[in-house]
Amino acid sequence: MRIVVVAPSCTLRPEAAEAATAIAASRGDAELVIHPQCFFSDGHFAGPDEVRLEALREVMADDRYDAVWFARGGYGSNRIAEAAVADLPAAARSKTYLGYSDAGFLLAPLHKAGLEVAHGPMVQDVARNGGEAAVNRALDWLVRRDESSLEPGLKAGQRALAFNLTVLSNLLGTSLEPDFTGAELLIEDVAEHEYRIDRVMFHVTGSPAIRRSSGIRMGRMSEIPDNDPAFGSDAESIVRDWCERSKIPFLGHADIGHDAANRVVPFK
Amino acid sequence: MRIVVVAPSCTLRPEAAEAATAIAASRGDAELVIHPQCFFSDGHFAGPDEVRLEALREVMADDRYDAVWFARGGYGSNRIAEAAVADLPAAARSKTYLGYSDAGFLLAPLHKAGLEVAHGPMVQDVARNGGEAAVNRALDWLVRRDESSLEPGLKAGQRALAFNLTVLSNLLGTSLEPDFTGAELLIEDVAEHEYRIDRVMFHVTGSPAIRRSSGIRMGRMSEIPDNDPAFGSDAESIVRDWCERSKIPFLGHADIGHDAANRVVPFK
Repeated sequence: MRIVVVAPSCTLRPEAAEAATAIAASRGDAELVIHPQCFFSDGHFAGPDEVRLEALREVMADDRYDAVWFARGGYGSNRIAEAAVADLPAAARSKTYLGYSDAGFLLAPLHKAGLEVAHGPMVQDVARNGGEAAVNRALDWLVRRDESSLEPGLKAGQRALAFNLTVLSNLLGTSLEPDFTGAELLIEDVAEHEYRIDRVMFHVTGSPAIRRSSGIRMGRMSEIPDNDPAFGSDAESIVRDWCERSKIPFLGHADIGHDAANRVVPFK
Repeated sequence: MRIVVVAPSCTLRPEAAEAATAIAASRGDAELVIHPQCFFSDGHFAGPDEVRLEALREVMADDRYDAVWFARGGYGSNRIAEAAVADLPAAARSKTYLGYSDAGFLLAPLHKAGLEVAHGPMVQDVARNGGEAAVNRALDWLVRRDESSLEPGLKAGQRALAFNLTVLSNLLGTSLEPDFTGAELLIEDVAEHEYRIDRVMFHVTGSPAIRRSSGIRMGRMSEIPDNDPAFGSDAESIVRDWCERSKIPFLGHADIGHDAANRVVPFK
């Protein structure tokens, strides 16, 4: 399987590209093609919007690739997401798209357009402790839809969507918003203060579109900065509280997060 | 005029309460009544939700007060905002409400309910450099609708609303969202990274409700933390860029912000 890597938000580290490429090569069932755009740099981003968009559109339209794997998160894919899904070429429809975090801004409209997308590990995750397992988990799913890569709570016949909570909040009400009706919604976040998690849970659970989901499952909320004074409740209590207030069922935990254990959630 | 102070989000400092009370007393035209709830503390908040809500509902229903002045921002008024505007007593409708920042979560539904609200200095602002002027500006407007307190770009017969940008983003799509149709929308923010300003501008300008506004005027975006690497554009370029992309007119600057110069914007 030929998997192409582009970076719609921030620059990929060359060491990470090399390490992930070597893992794929050693498996014998997958070839990673790292688009040069991954190493571009323009302020916060892996190249200007037009360059990131052009690289993404180019690989989406290229018949030689079976999957598009997003290099890493950060910030910026929202800036090109609407244009990325306009007038989709046929070749774009026969591919799988994988990523999470900021890449959720792309997963949402790609899913909405009927393409096959999943929330799961990215190339840069190879640099994490245990990162080789994350890369193999992603490849196992991309290459042979290995069920052991999947988030273990997913149920056959049950719609599911997964998002970074802050990204989800920022796409609600925009043209990128997908249909949440009847879907389990898995959320995770990283490096947000508890007051921000509380505020964004207020926003997300206050959305009529989100209230049409079948419930929320909570992934890991990691690297939460200290609140001064102590906030008074932890991330799980916050999520449970807003679920209760909004009458959205709290469905337990999800094995996703900004870490090497992050499992795959195919959107459906 | 009797003006009552409550704290729907975080705890007011006693020194600030004393200083503002003294300023009001020395004017001879206003009496500040500081509700004891302002000094309560419960984790991040000035007392638990029920206590903050009860204090707010109590002063709203009290005929002895002509205005409700929010003590300060922080975070938390969204947690009680929906309940605060339910089944409004008649006395609540004859008052003016003043605040900004997190208090925007209350200004929005109070305005939506037909009450007289304004975005402007709060009691805690007395602690800023030049804070006495901010308090007097607020009182000049509350007591005698002094036009010199007003944001200078406001035009007769032109609807206007003002919000902290991050607060605005977090109330969009919730029950607190006001009608933006034909209104000038004034925005300001504090202590947000440029990538967060960019992301939230994407969200806000991607909203069909916001696109019905007559345009955006930009207040101060202060205390922006360093981005690593440098983001690549400044706050004004970011706001102008998203206005252009969304075809929302950029209407120039607004004299509002998290500082002692913050002018008053009556919602209309």
